[in-house]
Amino acid sequence: MNTYQHEVKYYECDRMGITHHSNYVRFMEEARVDWLDQLGCGFDKIEAENVFSPVVSVSCEYKSPTTFKDIIDIEVKISKMSEMKFEFDYTMRSNDKLVCLGHSVHCFIENGRPVAISKRLPELYNSLTALLSK
Amino acid sequence: MNTYQHEVKYYECDRMGITHHSNYVRFMEEARVDWLDQLGCGFDKIEAENVFSPVVSVSCEYKSPTTFKDIIDIEVKISKMSEMKFEFDYTMRSNDKLVCLGHSVHCFIENGRPVAISKRLPELYNSLTALLSK
Amino acid sequence: MNTYQHEVKYYECDRMGITHHSNYVRFMEEARVDWLDQLGCGFDKIEAENVFSPVVSVSCEYKSPTTFKDIIDIEVKISKMSEMKFEFDYTMRSNDKLVCLGHSVHCFIENGRPVAISKRLPELYNSLTALLSK
Amino acid sequence: MNTYQHEVKYYECDRMGITHHSNYVRFMEEARVDWLDQLGCGFDKIEAENVFSPVVSVSCEYKSPTTFKDIIDIEVKISKMSEMKFEFDYTMRSNDKLVCLGHSVHCFIENGRPVAISKRLPELYNSLTALLSK
Repeated sequence: MNTYQHEVKYYECDRMGITHHSNYVRFMEEARVDWLDQLGCGFDKIEAENVFSPVVSVSCEYKSPTTFKDIIDIEVKISKMSEMKFEFDYTMRSNDKLVCLGHSVHCFIENGRPVAISKRLPELYNSLTALLSK
Repeated sequence: MNTYQHEVKYYECDRMGITHHSNYVRFMEEARVDWLDQLGCGFDKIEAENVFSPVVSVSCEYKSPTTFKDIIDIEVKISKMSEMKFEFDYTMRSNDKLVCLGHSVHCFIENGRPVAISKRLPELYNSLTALLSK
Repeated sequence: MNTYQHEVKYYECDRMGITHHSNYVRFMEEARVDWLDQLGCGFDKIEAENVFSPVVSVSCEYKSPTTFKDIIDIEVKISKMSEMKFEFDYTMRSNDKLVCLGHSVHCFIENGRPVAISKRLPELYNSLTALLSK
Repeated sequence: MNTYQHEVKYYECDRMGITHHSNYVRFMEEARVDWLDQLGCGFDKIEAENVFSPVVSVSCEYKSPTTFKDIIDIEVKISKMSEMKFEFDYTMRSNDKLVCLGHSVHCFIENGRPVAISKRLPELYNSLTALLSK
């Protein structure tokens, strides 16, 4: 899987002159979208099945600031998985520095109720399981 | 009609230390939402009818910068109206200074097609017409 | 200390029709700004001393979605403190439901280097310590 | 000059399922940054001279909606120029459709006061003038 690259935009920087910390949560989503696309199980395909994948929890440890025009390289790894939830780790680097470590947990819902991934989206479940065992 | 107040957030300020210009378009939406609520014809009521109101055009003239914690006072006025479209003017002031003049044009759509406001949302149409003639 | 209220804006909701999860990190900042203001040690006072307070880490557990016009009530509590860092817990409720639990860790820097809060901002340090012991 | 491409992010779409209209103002900034980079007169170079370029006015005419994963192709053209101001036109297309026409006006300031571009940034002034006369 290729890493995802986000170039920091002018409007993403704050009064301190650095990337506002809330934006890393958005970069994680961008990287996750790209990662699932590479796997052949994109958000658009999942949503076309009328299944949505809300975020259960998210966390960021900020290691070094970034700013306008910095290119952030984001590595996504699936770190844990069950019938109902899956978890990702994100390692973000820029200019040879670690800038942020992220983590997110996700579930799937259909008509407002949680669904078992293995049953509702078996193709995705198998792809994720295969990657996890590596 | 009361003016709407927006207090500038830390994350709305950019590297220049001032409110990023794109945010005024969002403040205009906030003020418009509040204005329609005061009129008794809120976005939620309109969307409950399965009618959506996309923005046809928007413009801002920036007169003076604002920054973190500034309170922007936004006056909304309906400036023009037809069967298919309505237009708003926005006057934004902060600390006794004019900060931004805004303008927006809106239509209504249902199932992806434009609808005549007078027929589909007569209550809103009448309220807006009454205000316009003042 | 009063709780902070954020009313969800139209532009804060996503394709799923709910408040995008990244925005809760911004709501936490808004609540923290208000909390420090109530304490008499606002961001603007701290930044006027040329001291900045970057976020060391942040996390959110999403318990229940919110949407356009929901009012989120945010309770901030200082949960831990040392010479160099302080930590906040956030409890967000809306319509009598728990919607999100947040946590953030902060340090202070001056000219790019960490500073001891007790020495550089003794007034803030004493206020925070007093609240922590309650 | 190459056109600039922006791929619409999940978090840029609103409750209507389409790109929120305020984001086009941000896409225009992204395209302008890229355009000035191609010209060899990037924002970072200008800001390194302690000169900032605030937006004087901005406008958007929305022609067709876009959504998640759409790639918006943005063509930037300098449309007008004087000693103190310059103006850009933006043509945004996606999937062979015109999606938005934008316009923005800019000045330059140093220490809070407007500066003549021809004197303060002659290299940029000459490059822009050359493009305008084409």
